[in-house]
Amino acid sequence: MPVVTIKLAGTFSREQKKQIAEEITDTLERVGGKPRRYTYIAFEELPDENWAIAGELLDEE
Amino acid sequence: MPVVTIKLAGTFSREQKKQIAEEITDTLERVGGKPRRYTYIAFEELPDENWAIAGELLDEE
Amino acid sequence: MPVVTIKLAGTFSREQKKQIAEEITDTLERVGGKPRRYTYIAFEELPDENWAIAGELLDEE
Amino acid sequence: MPVVTIKLAGTFSREQKKQIAEEITDTLERVGGKPRRYTYIAFEELPDENWAIAGELLDEE
Amino acid sequence: MPVVTIKLAGTFSREQKKQIAEEITDTLERVGGKPRRYTYIAFEELPDENWAIAGELLDEE
Amino acid sequence: MPVVTIKLAGTFSREQKKQIAEEITDTLERVGGKPRRYTYIAFEELPDENWAIAGELLDEE
Repeated sequence: MPVVTIKLAGTFSREQKKQIAEEITDTLERVGGKPRRYTYIAFEELPDENWAIAGELLDEE
Repeated sequence: MPVVTIKLAGTFSREQKKQIAEEITDTLERVGGKPRRYTYIAFEELPDENWAIAGELLDEE
Repeated sequence: MPVVTIKLAGTFSREQKKQIAEEITDTLERVGGKPRRYTYIAFEELPDENWAIAGELLDEE
Repeated sequence: MPVVTIKLAGTFSREQKKQIAEEITDTLERVGGKPRRYTYIAFEELPDENWAIAGELLDEE
Repeated sequence: MPVVTIKLAGTFSREQKKQIAEEITDTLERVGGKPRRYTYIAFEELPDENWAIAGELLDEE
Repeated sequence: MPVVTIKLAGTFSREQKKQIAEEITDTLERVGGKPRRYTYIAFEELPDENWAIAGELLDEE
């Protein structure tokens, strides 16, 4: 019932996702008081071509 | 002008998407008073590795 | 683990939200095979001034 | 710090994304007063089968 | 059927929203080939306290 | 350029948001290799009436 969405350019490895999911779930329990079983986390990985910062696609940088 | 996003782990078959889209559009018209032509539905399918519940990736379960 | 977001202009009454949540959860279980307890639904209600269709804010129509 | 998400059925070419990102970033700076470096834009491209309008999947039309 | 979401800290005035919606709808038609009537735009305005950049809430800056 | 959205029922206090933003930004830098200045975090707080789990609005529980 917190739903956390992490949108990123590129990808994380499976090990990175696993560690990040553990730490964020822990943070939301310890600091936010949200029971672990209610926390959903979704990783949305987009190619660099599909992200722009300051008007430039990331694959231009 | 309702925009419905359905984010899921894994995939639905085309037939499931078709049936789910029909039923949700019907619900929003009948219960919510939203004309059918304004309802947009997007299915966002993520691999199990990209979802965590309770701090564990779904492909661990 | 389906997470459903319903973004709309204006508001639904509490009774409408209750009925819509029941029906969509039922649809996702019956058609999509998703256990009821995993389905999260969030209603995001925006003022008409914050929505545009075809380049016009909804409060212009 | 504006984060713009553009969800579409089908795809844009890289040239379209580049031009659209430039124009939207420009609009948000010129009209909205948001410095260019803070504007993030993400393109989320979904297959036609994953979108419905008026209760019909787009690949039915 | 492009759905554009613009998430920002603070607010835009109604005139800013109107102008931004017109320009983005125009861009998506002219550059992206998307008919005007299909473009939905939603402005999601969040208080500064609800945004962080670089680990700091915006109301700290 | 990771953009993190935390959607929750109810609210966090300002202190909770500050601490959560710090910890998540740290996690994404340390584990995910994302420079702090690129991480955006948005807290979207919804009333209990606007969330359903298992087909029931949270204010029914």
